[in-house]
Amino acid sequence: MTHADVPAEAAAPAYLVLQHAADIAESLNQTSRDEALALLARLPVEHAIDVFDQPELERAADLLRGMPSERAAAILSGMASDRQVDLIRQARLGQRDALFKLVDAQTAASLRRLLAYRRDSAGSIMTTEFVSAPATASVAEVLQHIREIHHTRETIYPIYVLDPATGALMQTVSLRRLITCDPSDTILSLATGREPIVVSPSTDREEVARQISRHDLLAVPVVDEARHVLGIVTVDDVIDAIVAESTEDIQKFGGVAGVEGPYLQISFGQMIYKRAGWLCALFLSEMLTANAMQYFQSELEKAIVLTLFIPLIMSSGGNSGSQATSLLIRALALGQLRLRDWWRVALRELPTGVTLGAILGVIGMLRISVWQVFHFYDYGVHWQLIALTVGVGLVGIVTFGSMSGSMLPFVLKRLGFDPASASAPFVATLVDVTGLVIYFTVAMVILRGTLL
Amino acid sequence: MTHADVPAEAAAPAYLVLQHAADIAESLNQTSRDEALALLARLPVEHAIDVFDQPELERAADLLRGMPSERAAAILSGMASDRQVDLIRQARLGQRDALFKLVDAQTAASLRRLLAYRRDSAGSIMTTEFVSAPATASVAEVLQHIREIHHTRETIYPIYVLDPATGALMQTVSLRRLITCDPSDTILSLATGREPIVVSPSTDREEVARQISRHDLLAVPVVDEARHVLGIVTVDDVIDAIVAESTEDIQKFGGVAGVEGPYLQISFGQMIYKRAGWLCALFLSEMLTANAMQYFQSELEKAIVLTLFIPLIMSSGGNSGSQATSLLIRALALGQLRLRDWWRVALRELPTGVTLGAILGVIGMLRISVWQVFHFYDYGVHWQLIALTVGVGLVGIVTFGSMSGSMLPFVLKRLGFDPASASAPFVATLVDVTGLVIYFTVAMVILRGTLL
Repeated sequence: MTHADVPAEAAAPAYLVLQHAADIAESLNQTSRDEALALLARLPVEHAIDVFDQPELERAADLLRGMPSERAAAILSGMASDRQVDLIRQARLGQRDALFKLVDAQTAASLRRLLAYRRDSAGSIMTTEFVSAPATASVAEVLQHIREIHHTRETIYPIYVLDPATGALMQTVSLRRLITCDPSDTILSLATGREPIVVSPSTDREEVARQISRHDLLAVPVVDEARHVLGIVTVDDVIDAIVAESTEDIQKFGGVAGVEGPYLQISFGQMIYKRAGWLCALFLSEMLTANAMQYFQSELEKAIVLTLFIPLIMSSGGNSGSQATSLLIRALALGQLRLRDWWRVALRELPTGVTLGAILGVIGMLRISVWQVFHFYDYGVHWQLIALTVGVGLVGIVTFGSMSGSMLPFVLKRLGFDPASASAPFVATLVDVTGLVIYFTVAMVILRGTLL
Repeated sequence: MTHADVPAEAAAPAYLVLQHAADIAESLNQTSRDEALALLARLPVEHAIDVFDQPELERAADLLRGMPSERAAAILSGMASDRQVDLIRQARLGQRDALFKLVDAQTAASLRRLLAYRRDSAGSIMTTEFVSAPATASVAEVLQHIREIHHTRETIYPIYVLDPATGALMQTVSLRRLITCDPSDTILSLATGREPIVVSPSTDREEVARQISRHDLLAVPVVDEARHVLGIVTVDDVIDAIVAESTEDIQKFGGVAGVEGPYLQISFGQMIYKRAGWLCALFLSEMLTANAMQYFQSELEKAIVLTLFIPLIMSSGGNSGSQATSLLIRALALGQLRLRDWWRVALRELPTGVTLGAILGVIGMLRISVWQVFHFYDYGVHWQLIALTVGVGLVGIVTFGSMSGSMLPFVLKRLGFDPASASAPFVATLVDVTGLVIYFTVAMVILRGTLL
């Protein structure tokens, strides 16, 4: 006998019913499976549905399997369709069939359709429960319809007005308009006449988020070619999507390949796997620095003093590149810049890089002069030429860093990659190899006939 | 005579009225001030208000000043209070008084109060137009009230139920509940009884976003100590806030200090100013690498072959540090980790760093062996010891990189800074200096008696 056999409503203590679903989900995440099941059994089924509708709830499929199947069926069937899809997607493949058996045949077929959409597309995050009405319906009729079906709808605030003949989307009307207008008006007469904002099932979630945020919508309809509404993406899903995207962007920028889930829950193997790939790729590219150094070995032997500034100069190129990349990644992601604007950016970064390089160059030359003049270190008789080499080298390398850091996101975008794949370590590696070549070339020009 | 003197409704062409406010705002941003004013003059005032309510509209204060003052007053008074505050905040100080004169004394006083809230706090992004009702009101009365005042409210979907005696917030009820319940019920009887989610005016917008997203709210009330509702923050403002925060986080991570506004609109001076600060700070710290190199100069002269691998080894430390930092910044920002979890993270990063270092170390030793065995380069008779130095050095440096990259965000948080201030260049600089010391120390142990 489980708790669920007792009528749940009677057993549910007030303190549980009065808790927010998000808080209950968090408590469930922190207890053992058995305790979680015992707690869930004491919740009224409506409230349990709210808890399972929280994207934060972990082990959801597993918890459902631990319940009497009738109750599991009631909960799964009551959930919003986007969360049902989430839950099935997260379940192990072997568990999926058991989950499909919990819902009726029609729902199962609809879920299979939703599961077929590409991950992170509008189709994969939409819910199929929305309110629609034929254009000829009166406000009173639509309100009555909403009263009857609202329990099964995720949101009732946007109402999709359909062509009575074809079922195609004509207009969107808000509940707000409905309750403030004459009940005998037709619903179509309340519409603004503006072209409704829509997305297609294959639209990327980032673009969905941009549309919702741009037009301050509570939901955006997902339509097929014939403008039939397949589902809607609601603003709360979009927030989750935006947060997930920024996590991905920051991690990519740091040089980690898409790590999902809380830090402490990533297994050791996963952690190595996600980090070693990029680290090895960067390491192999960075090996070119060893080749560059070998190439300039005779110069190195003649003027070992040059090596002292290699880390300083190289890192400055990487830093200025990383700055430029972070600015450009965001500008491209926010749609402030398009691919064709690359030359405007290049025209800005060139003088910016030269100026920043000149500032660092002057500091660098001062540093060498101070050390020499105050006898902290002896750079030899040609110390002024060495200072000049460092100064000119910095101008060249910082300029090259800014230019390549700002152009890299454009190049990636042009090649069809996400501009956000331009990570700080990637830019640094790119700049390091070329930086060495610039430095030694400058040295050979300035120090020819003296040290070299 | 301006266009605005003609009754605007008559002059507004259908194609304009049928455009979305966000699209009109974008067109206005792309035209000259005079053209923008001419276009605005042809819009019905209600529609012009919608356009001014778009946070994306640039030069808003300036455009208002270009209009006949009666029309400017109508538009400014019709805007949502959060946008009014935005507009005044963005206006030059000298323009502010003129703007205050456009609204009535009560609104002006309320705006001055809102302006006093700290930037990025709930108080600074809230709107004061919301729907509230005393607990004793019936559903029918509340619906009637909404019909009367809805034109002046940003959202009417959450209704705040107040204690009739004290005016304190008791419960939140959704419009959804209202229209699906018996009109003779009291509004309080529709409430869930759950403690309403609230924030205080000083709550940071990041925390406001977290609450709205966690509880899937359309708005969250901002209350004072006596639980009087001062205003609400709506979900669309939160999306803007989340997007702004992630831009800030990526830029900080890239080593740029808070650049606001689209890339191409940042002036050259601003661009240098925002980037030169960090770049110089990093450059000055990185100068320690020159000191470290000078310190090991005798070793360098004896074994110049060691210098060949300095860029390779240093960059690996920086890269692994940057990976760890990006993971930890997000985990801390999303609340997955707390300050007291630092030791758990350290216990994960230590073996992760050793493993990653070992992987790179093996690749590095292979590289040296292959070059030596196939005569691509001659590292001398002690090439095996040099390979070992590089391998062991990499383990040490990558481990140190992972450890310091992961601990730095905790240290910053502990010191009261934003953990997201730990930029990739900052971590790289930190690791570079120590990396050199580790490398040369390893070399002195392994190569003592042979090369050194």
